[in-house]
Amino acid sequence: MDAISRLLQPRSVAIIGASADPTKTAGRPVAYLRKHGYAGQILPVNPKADRIGDLPCYADIASLPVVPDVGIVLLGAERAHLAVRDLAARGTAAAIVLASGYTETGEDGARRQRQLIEAAGSMRILGPNTIGLVNLTDKIVLSATGALEMDHFPVGGIGVVSQSGGILGSLLSRASARGVGLSKLISTSNEVDLELADFIDHLADDEATKVIALYVETVRNPQKFRAAALKAARAGKPVVAFKIGRSEAGAAAAVSHTGAMAGADRMYDALFRQTGVIRAQSFSDLLDIPVALATGRKLRGNRVAILTSTGGAGTLVSDDLGLHGFETPAPDAATAEALRVLQTGSEAVLDRNPIDVTLAGLRPDLLRGAITALLASPSYDALTIIVGSSSLAQPELMAGAIQDCLPQTDKPVMAYVSPHAPEIGALLTQRGVPAFAAAESCTAALGAMRKASRFVAPDEAQAAGLAVAVDDFAPGSLDEAQAKQLFARFGVPCASEIIVSTPAEAKAAAAQLGGRVVLKMLSAQVTHKSDVGGVAVGLDEETVGARLTQMAADVEAKAGFRPKRYLVQQMVGGGTELILGMHRDPLGTAILLGMGGVTAELFKDTTMRLLPADANGLSALSRAEALSMARDLKTWPLLDGFRGRPKADVEALVDAIVAFSRMAAQLGERLVEAEINPVFVLPQGQGVRAADGVVVLA
Amino acid sequence: MDAISRLLQPRSVAIIGASADPTKTAGRPVAYLRKHGYAGQILPVNPKADRIGDLPCYADIASLPVVPDVGIVLLGAERAHLAVRDLAARGTAAAIVLASGYTETGEDGARRQRQLIEAAGSMRILGPNTIGLVNLTDKIVLSATGALEMDHFPVGGIGVVSQSGGILGSLLSRASARGVGLSKLISTSNEVDLELADFIDHLADDEATKVIALYVETVRNPQKFRAAALKAARAGKPVVAFKIGRSEAGAAAAVSHTGAMAGADRMYDALFRQTGVIRAQSFSDLLDIPVALATGRKLRGNRVAILTSTGGAGTLVSDDLGLHGFETPAPDAATAEALRVLQTGSEAVLDRNPIDVTLAGLRPDLLRGAITALLASPSYDALTIIVGSSSLAQPELMAGAIQDCLPQTDKPVMAYVSPHAPEIGALLTQRGVPAFAAAESCTAALGAMRKASRFVAPDEAQAAGLAVAVDDFAPGSLDEAQAKQLFARFGVPCASEIIVSTPAEAKAAAAQLGGRVVLKMLSAQVTHKSDVGGVAVGLDEETVGARLTQMAADVEAKAGFRPKRYLVQQMVGGGTELILGMHRDPLGTAILLGMGGVTAELFKDTTMRLLPADANGLSALSRAEALSMARDLKTWPLLDGFRGRPKADVEALVDAIVAFSRMAAQLGERLVEAEINPVFVLPQGQGVRAADGVVVLA
Repeated sequence: MDAISRLLQPRSVAIIGASADPTKTAGRPVAYLRKHGYAGQILPVNPKADRIGDLPCYADIASLPVVPDVGIVLLGAERAHLAVRDLAARGTAAAIVLASGYTETGEDGARRQRQLIEAAGSMRILGPNTIGLVNLTDKIVLSATGALEMDHFPVGGIGVVSQSGGILGSLLSRASARGVGLSKLISTSNEVDLELADFIDHLADDEATKVIALYVETVRNPQKFRAAALKAARAGKPVVAFKIGRSEAGAAAAVSHTGAMAGADRMYDALFRQTGVIRAQSFSDLLDIPVALATGRKLRGNRVAILTSTGGAGTLVSDDLGLHGFETPAPDAATAEALRVLQTGSEAVLDRNPIDVTLAGLRPDLLRGAITALLASPSYDALTIIVGSSSLAQPELMAGAIQDCLPQTDKPVMAYVSPHAPEIGALLTQRGVPAFAAAESCTAALGAMRKASRFVAPDEAQAAGLAVAVDDFAPGSLDEAQAKQLFARFGVPCASEIIVSTPAEAKAAAAQLGGRVVLKMLSAQVTHKSDVGGVAVGLDEETVGARLTQMAADVEAKAGFRPKRYLVQQMVGGGTELILGMHRDPLGTAILLGMGGVTAELFKDTTMRLLPADANGLSALSRAEALSMARDLKTWPLLDGFRGRPKADVEALVDAIVAFSRMAAQLGERLVEAEINPVFVLPQGQGVRAADGVVVLA
Repeated sequence: MDAISRLLQPRSVAIIGASADPTKTAGRPVAYLRKHGYAGQILPVNPKADRIGDLPCYADIASLPVVPDVGIVLLGAERAHLAVRDLAARGTAAAIVLASGYTETGEDGARRQRQLIEAAGSMRILGPNTIGLVNLTDKIVLSATGALEMDHFPVGGIGVVSQSGGILGSLLSRASARGVGLSKLISTSNEVDLELADFIDHLADDEATKVIALYVETVRNPQKFRAAALKAARAGKPVVAFKIGRSEAGAAAAVSHTGAMAGADRMYDALFRQTGVIRAQSFSDLLDIPVALATGRKLRGNRVAILTSTGGAGTLVSDDLGLHGFETPAPDAATAEALRVLQTGSEAVLDRNPIDVTLAGLRPDLLRGAITALLASPSYDALTIIVGSSSLAQPELMAGAIQDCLPQTDKPVMAYVSPHAPEIGALLTQRGVPAFAAAESCTAALGAMRKASRFVAPDEAQAAGLAVAVDDFAPGSLDEAQAKQLFARFGVPCASEIIVSTPAEAKAAAAQLGGRVVLKMLSAQVTHKSDVGGVAVGLDEETVGARLTQMAADVEAKAGFRPKRYLVQQMVGGGTELILGMHRDPLGTAILLGMGGVTAELFKDTTMRLLPADANGLSALSRAEALSMARDLKTWPLLDGFRGRPKADVEALVDAIVAFSRMAAQLGERLVEAEINPVFVLPQGQGVRAADGVVVLA
């Protein structure tokens, strides 16, 4: 057994600093282990006590009669490392350190944390600042969370990993009250050693776990996280994450324009999306979505039947589903007939959905018939049953009737409970029908089921070909012409251009390029050329020379120097302006695609994908990923023939995104900043043209 | 006493069709009246029973010993009108008709509904298809809702009006479980007579009611609704509405482009906004927001202190607040010192917010001190207290400590309960500290308090001056030139233009206008001129003549006729393109302002305001409303100097919106369709120019 398995299923547990008083935090772990039926050996350690309850208590770790698989360290931060050292010396697999007062409190705490890591040596540590873990599958609770005061917990298929101990307690008690069955809960907190990814990896192999729910504050090791999440996906176990820190997005200062538009939180969006992790949008989704996924039922389309005996609540659910792209079509003729047969003489109207069956008091036999008809109908992909006040009189009968119908198909079936009736909700959930008290929960659960059914774990990153020679580019800011040469070297088509120094050269260049041209000052120092009068558009052979003379004067007046070189560039027209950039932060390097223009900027219409990890730097985004980026944009219709516009050359855009990503991958840390802004996407068959860009090399 | 007062506080109630079996729906009203302590006279009517419990039962309405204030009619739809007729004949104030099977079921039902109205005469009717009403203030329950099986209901200041009976039951049972005190609940349902607005109006005068919560499916009488909502606002009683039908927005077909962009649901947004009604975004908000408003506490800024003893949950609340524009600043020095004094020797870090006081087990005296310090701090406008597992051991002490501090200020204080602990939530709520189980609820409640504190009920609509003479415009579609003449007549500046028929006239017109011009075919029939080649831009005196000849040929080829007249128009440049339009639906006539251009269209960047009602049609939007429309646009920064752009002439835009609204108000039903698209807003001091437009007159 590996250390994590021993941590989750220890044959023996030492509790260092155990108290005989179960009302104290230090008294809880022993009390909870016994209360919840731990079958292994419990070894309290406390020099001030002889016994704790009927258990012998040991003076120190050295005196323990066996080597414990796990040590729970309840000492304060000033002494915890001593216990950790002693446990490590005995050969304990892992220590759980509850004390707070480490890096989260400042410099002294950071010193204590280093001390702790040193003391552990090769022994694994959970924490510090953790509330421990709860293994419900095997009735092993290694935790001080007050939630364990509850007597019973539904056992089920949802594994929880939380970076907050308080949240672990919250999820445990909330799940229990709702009849949501969990397998394991682990609070990783400060993660000096064992972290999120370790437990995702472990739970992906855990037979009892069908879905993994994460409460995330930060991902410390993105590559490990990515590997673990993809392993879970390949094992058919959806991962659902609620990540906080969403509103800190604006806080991280960013050098380039691209950086400013892409906050760190959006990097998590990219990471989650690319690894198939479903992001919970609210904390309540972090139970609602897993409980639906844990049923293992499959959502194959977006058509939902709503069966109700109370009009208002059905409408509520239907309205929210409609807001999120689900359809609630009326029953087809055969289904309507099957429903009609059930209720002779009633006033039910069967030309609509919600399907209000007005069954007197919801008779279970009629309910069973209606559910059977709706599940069998080819018009529906899922069924939501509304539980109104009238169903509360006979919850058991009703839950039984619904449960009986589940084996008929593997379509999702869920319930919305309209009145306050937590008992019937818990009953239904435990019978395999996730029950929700909010319409938004039904929608979130169904939406996640759609996502889960669509995600396909990507193949391992493939090498993108031979390295491109780039040694001739010197460190520092490249000027616009150099930047485009770099882009072009990797295969991004750029607007034709000629470097000039004099009006005569400019005229000749314009003649050579033909048509309208743009004149720009060329300087590696000035990023915003137009701010100093260094850009002029709509010129031609006749006008470009004089304009160069004027530009020289304008720039000198505004920027204090006279540009020596200029760019005469073919003027690109008739396309859609996009931005293609690179963003790097602790989560990795991402490629950013955004709609250009001031309006799109106000709407922050951008999307990102993280580059796959590859030590050789020769991997890139796949064409499929590049295409999905373009389709992500809210302004995608502008590329796709919106309102009679010509369809854009999306193939060429995809090529450009892949080429740009390959550049970012190969250059790695050498590429400090890179952005093409704008890149024009021309009509189909005409390609793309990078028209301006910024590159800073290290 | 008026009829509605008698309906809500009857001295006597007849129950027509009462059953002696309290498990049947028909047995419930009598059982519930007695169970919940009704002190008036209960008069069951049923020819088949002599007594119901210890009450005498009457054979028919004519035999009743007194005229009942209210009759609850439990008969089916086929017979209910007979009881209604008899009640009306006796002089009963109001009948509550529970039967379904009216307009909601089709033609037969509609016939029955007409029969019912006729039978009522001048007697008021609540329903049909209603579950009745519950007056908790006076312990009078005139309802069959199963929620009344509960024994006790917290009584408080929230009045509820619901257009669904099932939802009334849901709100009653959910509020009760959470300790949320209600005053009256009324289910209006089919509203053949008494409707939403009647009860808003009544509750605005009801002493026991501090906040009015509405569950809205449709507003049948917008003017009455507007008057009632404004009456409530002037009485200092916030109105909160949850309206379903949000996802039907796309369903209504619309004639003009403006119409297509403005769905009916957005008309409700406009109606609610203009009457100060706070729109609940989710059903759960419909209790969460009122319970916060009912405290009467005032939110004066956006800075929230979060007091916690458990890190994770505090972060959760802080993160969600941050997403919605609230700030959570760290304590100022004086406040930090006041907190530090409370906890000698602890490891609390007081340079951050959430303020984690790590009080061992949350001692009430320390809690009281911390709350006092935070409420006194000038750095905070509100306080959210996190209730973690550790507080659950002594809920009463903790709730008492919090409650003790409330009188110190009138800043909002609320609680987030992290574990599943409904009892402590209900306890806190009843003590005046609204407690929520979702971070989103805290945010929604605080957000609504901000809105409520800012709304000022507008003065009565003022006449906008003398009527403009418009009799010279004939019915039908106006051509572009006529449309702009109409706009100009009301004061909207239009681009200069000259109507021409020949190339020579076009040349002369271009010379007269000067600069660049636009050439457009002139036709009342063709709306999308550019689709048939009928628009050319960037012309001048030299080119416009030839272009006219070419346009004539192009249009003939594409549209099958040769235009006789053309418009030579000054080309407007350097401004921001907007759309100004009119939208009419059952809720009224609205003015729509939208950002122009294809990108903004994809983002549906529009806003609407309903015209105030005025029989004379001489009212208009106020300048303040017009300005708020411009500021509503997500692209408002484009008008406001975004990224160094010149500030736009917003004053002139406001004038144009007011002028356009005055036109819509005066023309009333005569104006079938009207849109200016685009209107250019030029830099400050240069005004606006309507450049194209559509008008259809009846």
